[in-house]
Amino acid sequence: MIDVKLNGCKSFVDDSTMNLYLDKVEKAFDTLMGGKGAGSDYLGWLDLPSRTLDSDIVAQCDRIVQRWSKNIDVVVVIGIGGSYLGAKSFIEAVSHTFDVQLRNYRPQIVYAGHNMTEIYLADLLDFIKQKSVAAVVVSKSGTTTEPAVAFRLIRNHIEGRYGKEEARNRIVAITDSSKGALKSMSDKEGYTTLVIPDNVGGRYSVFTSAGLLPIALAGHDMKDFLEGARAMERKCKVWDRNNPAVQYAAVRNALYMSGRKIEVLSNFNPRLVMFGEWWKQLFGESEGKDGKGLFPVTMTFTTDLHSLGQYMQQGERIMFETVLSIRQSNRTIVLATEQENLDGLNYLSGKTIGECNKKAELATIQAHVEGGVPCAVIEINNITEYNLGALYYFFEFACALSAYTLGVNPFDQPGVELYKRNMFTLLGKPGFVNNK
Amino acid sequence: MIDVKLNGCKSFVDDSTMNLYLDKVEKAFDTLMGGKGAGSDYLGWLDLPSRTLDSDIVAQCDRIVQRWSKNIDVVVVIGIGGSYLGAKSFIEAVSHTFDVQLRNYRPQIVYAGHNMTEIYLADLLDFIKQKSVAAVVVSKSGTTTEPAVAFRLIRNHIEGRYGKEEARNRIVAITDSSKGALKSMSDKEGYTTLVIPDNVGGRYSVFTSAGLLPIALAGHDMKDFLEGARAMERKCKVWDRNNPAVQYAAVRNALYMSGRKIEVLSNFNPRLVMFGEWWKQLFGESEGKDGKGLFPVTMTFTTDLHSLGQYMQQGERIMFETVLSIRQSNRTIVLATEQENLDGLNYLSGKTIGECNKKAELATIQAHVEGGVPCAVIEINNITEYNLGALYYFFEFACALSAYTLGVNPFDQPGVELYKRNMFTLLGKPGFVNNK
Repeated sequence: MIDVKLNGCKSFVDDSTMNLYLDKVEKAFDTLMGGKGAGSDYLGWLDLPSRTLDSDIVAQCDRIVQRWSKNIDVVVVIGIGGSYLGAKSFIEAVSHTFDVQLRNYRPQIVYAGHNMTEIYLADLLDFIKQKSVAAVVVSKSGTTTEPAVAFRLIRNHIEGRYGKEEARNRIVAITDSSKGALKSMSDKEGYTTLVIPDNVGGRYSVFTSAGLLPIALAGHDMKDFLEGARAMERKCKVWDRNNPAVQYAAVRNALYMSGRKIEVLSNFNPRLVMFGEWWKQLFGESEGKDGKGLFPVTMTFTTDLHSLGQYMQQGERIMFETVLSIRQSNRTIVLATEQENLDGLNYLSGKTIGECNKKAELATIQAHVEGGVPCAVIEINNITEYNLGALYYFFEFACALSAYTLGVNPFDQPGVELYKRNMFTLLGKPGFVNNK
Repeated sequence: MIDVKLNGCKSFVDDSTMNLYLDKVEKAFDTLMGGKGAGSDYLGWLDLPSRTLDSDIVAQCDRIVQRWSKNIDVVVVIGIGGSYLGAKSFIEAVSHTFDVQLRNYRPQIVYAGHNMTEIYLADLLDFIKQKSVAAVVVSKSGTTTEPAVAFRLIRNHIEGRYGKEEARNRIVAITDSSKGALKSMSDKEGYTTLVIPDNVGGRYSVFTSAGLLPIALAGHDMKDFLEGARAMERKCKVWDRNNPAVQYAAVRNALYMSGRKIEVLSNFNPRLVMFGEWWKQLFGESEGKDGKGLFPVTMTFTTDLHSLGQYMQQGERIMFETVLSIRQSNRTIVLATEQENLDGLNYLSGKTIGECNKKAELATIQAHVEGGVPCAVIEINNITEYNLGALYYFFEFACALSAYTLGVNPFDQPGVELYKRNMFTLLGKPGFVNNK
């Protein structure tokens, strides 16, 4: 399902070092599976795929899809960080690149509350006022500033256009089961609510309704997605030194301790750009603390070979690379022979573009290893709901193992508070006194 | 026009260090302006804004815009690296976020040749076959694999649908004035051609027709863009320690030599995401060589505060931040008071979202400096063609100064060749023997 290939790391991490880190990861595995580590209140994600498949969450999401299937053109998904990255990254990976232009969706999913940029929100309002609109707001507390501001705008827009009664049919809240401002408001206003479990943090929430409802609304198969994740869940939970998550957690810690400070997750398919954003949150927020952690960066090749390729090849040797590799393309274009061959490309005749791209991938790995950049490869067969489900779970599990191996709490994010506190002070929020 | 504010660097770079680096930048300035440095065959960009304004390039672009204004729905811009990043980043910065959905463009600009991803190209062909299509192909040589492959596909598509005769009206090539495969093909096939000057490298080409024609086709004001650049050109070329480009070049070198290996260019406006991609190429490719150079990274806040904010605050202290700051928003949304205040946001009543975002920016800078991340601020008044023209030129000039200060050739990219050589070998290109 998922292969981790470490050939491109061999000349940087010798066998005894790798074994040392595999031993460390084994301890981290015991910590994680035994619920003995820091943050163990947040282990709800561990069996989330299997638990969700056995629950009525899929049915709940389906009912909302049905309710909105006839009359809704646009759904605004409101959330920030883990509240939207899982859904958006999955939807972009499996959707036609020109879906918006071809309009072969119904409804279209757009996003808000993931920034506080006036022009973005003004532009969004321009767009939705021409459409029949609904909203899904995702927030455990309901008081995170960005989504709260966006939700106020969108809620006012919906209530203003359709009235309070109809707004009830057009707003769904995904939030805490019992507490928080969004839960209270939803109860009072009569919004349909779905639950983010207490013991699942934002960046581990793609298999909760926060991920599943937008995915279902966009027309993709939640069940396949969950089944792929469940297969990986079963695989990850059994200790095995050859388990891909174990191998990945070990090698990235070994490389980090050898002085590599940056991990570049590269892909050769622009549909995975947002997946990279999800991955950056997962690893950056889980490991970047106590003055430690790999700095997570993503690149899309061959695009970025023509911008960051020079640096990768010959700049500071402070990074390693993890190639997110897709074995097979989902579409086929064969290059034809041209009589005149004015562009000199006839040597590619009969090859598919996918084959050319695959050779570019192999060539890049060779070149980077030769240039002093260790390269790990994480490979899936092709982009399907099922394989992506497995991939998301794989990274979640590997991240928890990796963070425990590094010696940090994978599930907290204490550093996110400081800018918020400063901002509340500057904005004059009650309870925040300006001491400056 | 552009202000560089270094308050957030003061506790990391003391005055005497800053003066030392200003002295180094002064030498680099002499090297650059005297044409005495490595790569001095590629200084054509230095007076490009003023030269272009005095030429007939704007008129040439206008003629193509006119020619296509009535019957073309979609223009495919084909290019990779510097051949498309300038145009795409500018167009995204000044365009309505939901232009595609609102269809208030004519024609729509889409991109190809910036990857070799089969599914992307297959999806693109799905889209364009429903539209009246034209193409602009940008390549100095015409033999760079990705754009050459994409151009072969798009050319075949256009010739197949409209015939060879009409294809001549629908294809424009931007290429070398006299040599290369694309120039030969264009002469033979009778395509309109525009020129990329010999002495301007790809990443410095936004003010050539490679940048200007797509910008004009997208409906934006080339002249304002060039005039902003010319104003900055005039300012940059006069030595002054307080010149913003000089200040920026000095501080980033000082921070690099103090052990900061990563520069994070952050913005608080998602319209600048692609601008960040342009900036990454400019600096990464100019400086990332000889084992040196700042690793260029971009972040969009507040979005990424909820993913990479934790790392920025408490991870490894190996980065500094440069905030690309926009003083004024181009749109206004005032937050209203709500009677019930269920979301607790009434403390923001009467404020614009732009003000809230600006406070978030100040709060972030405070928090990051406090967390041990030096923060420089580069400020423009608002997003206009004119101000962006100044900003592109500012970064080009600062980059050349910075690279000379670092002691590398700002204008070559020798490291980009290795993956290409490996790829040609794997693909069996004539002349590339597989020795493995």
